[in-house]
Amino acid sequence: MIPDRLRKQFEFALELDKEKNILRQTHLSSNGRRENDAEHAWHMAVMAYLLREYSNEEIDIAKVMIMCLIHDVVEIDAGDTYCYDPSALATQKERELAARDRIFGMLPEDQRAEFTALFDEFEACGTPESRFAHSMDNMQPLILNDSNDGGDWREHGISATQVYGRHKMTRLGSEILYDAADEIIQKNIEKGNLKK
Amino acid sequence: MIPDRLRKQFEFALELDKEKNILRQTHLSSNGRRENDAEHAWHMAVMAYLLREYSNEEIDIAKVMIMCLIHDVVEIDAGDTYCYDPSALATQKERELAARDRIFGMLPEDQRAEFTALFDEFEACGTPESRFAHSMDNMQPLILNDSNDGGDWREHGISATQVYGRHKMTRLGSEILYDAADEIIQKNIEKGNLKK
Repeated sequence: MIPDRLRKQFEFALELDKEKNILRQTHLSSNGRRENDAEHAWHMAVMAYLLREYSNEEIDIAKVMIMCLIHDVVEIDAGDTYCYDPSALATQKERELAARDRIFGMLPEDQRAEFTALFDEFEACGTPESRFAHSMDNMQPLILNDSNDGGDWREHGISATQVYGRHKMTRLGSEILYDAADEIIQKNIEKGNLKK
Repeated sequence: MIPDRLRKQFEFALELDKEKNILRQTHLSSNGRRENDAEHAWHMAVMAYLLREYSNEEIDIAKVMIMCLIHDVVEIDAGDTYCYDPSALATQKERELAARDRIFGMLPEDQRAEFTALFDEFEACGTPESRFAHSMDNMQPLILNDSNDGGDWREHGISATQVYGRHKMTRLGSEILYDAADEIIQKNIEKGNLKK
């Protein structure tokens, strides 16, 4: 018989599958369909490994990767909150904490504590790993959106000020990647893809 | 100006986006749509972290995770090869090696070598990390398919012998997960989801 601990871990793994149905505002390259949370998390984690040399601080890359992989698990219950939607942002924290407790609560106690701590560390952005993971959370949609000539920004009428506001977090994780983001944002302002 | 090295890394990251359009034979839980390679890789990498305690051998979990995340990158060019399709399997190696060289060839030389080595190590299955990554490559679709009452096996008329053949690899990475797989396979034989 499958031991109780492993059965709980399988049930959690199966629950995670639902993240593949949570759609983001970002579209895939070549003006593709909307991206889902699982794809976004996968892309972030590969980029974290690929770009780890640019972290401002020394990082444990395994910790960065698992943070990237699980940071949106709460959206299974709470849904995706568009980063430029103020009314959704107002209730985001409460919805996501309830989701965190339910979903990680499926795990054996030691892993419930471990995954909750990883999620909270990402959210608090107070460690080198969480700062670099946040850089990835910003850079990943930036390169997709840039490849689509800023389609996601144009669709929502986003301003350069809003994008720069978000990329303050990129800078905390990586000055070099922030400089690249800045160049990409400036190019999109010039093209009229972002409102001044 | 974005340095040449970073520009190459961004171009590679953007190329990876295409993996989200490569469909597998596996369906999402609740009899959902077909899964794509990026989602599968994400799920495998989270499961590797979640289940690492069951590895037969000591493993570097960062290495297992990045292997899981990139092991299907070659399918951007080579397409998904169904693991129970003998004619597709016959040409798989050649198609995937050409894809490997093109896609990882987009990277700066040191990273081309690093990612190629990670991919080759996974394929060769000769190290603790690659063995555990292969266990994940088998366990992830197993729990999805089991949750759908064996729908993917029934659709393709798969036999228990074929599934056990594949799960020889699971055992090399984890005896405990193999025992769980065995229990799940036996249950699906009894239910008539797998041919004897």
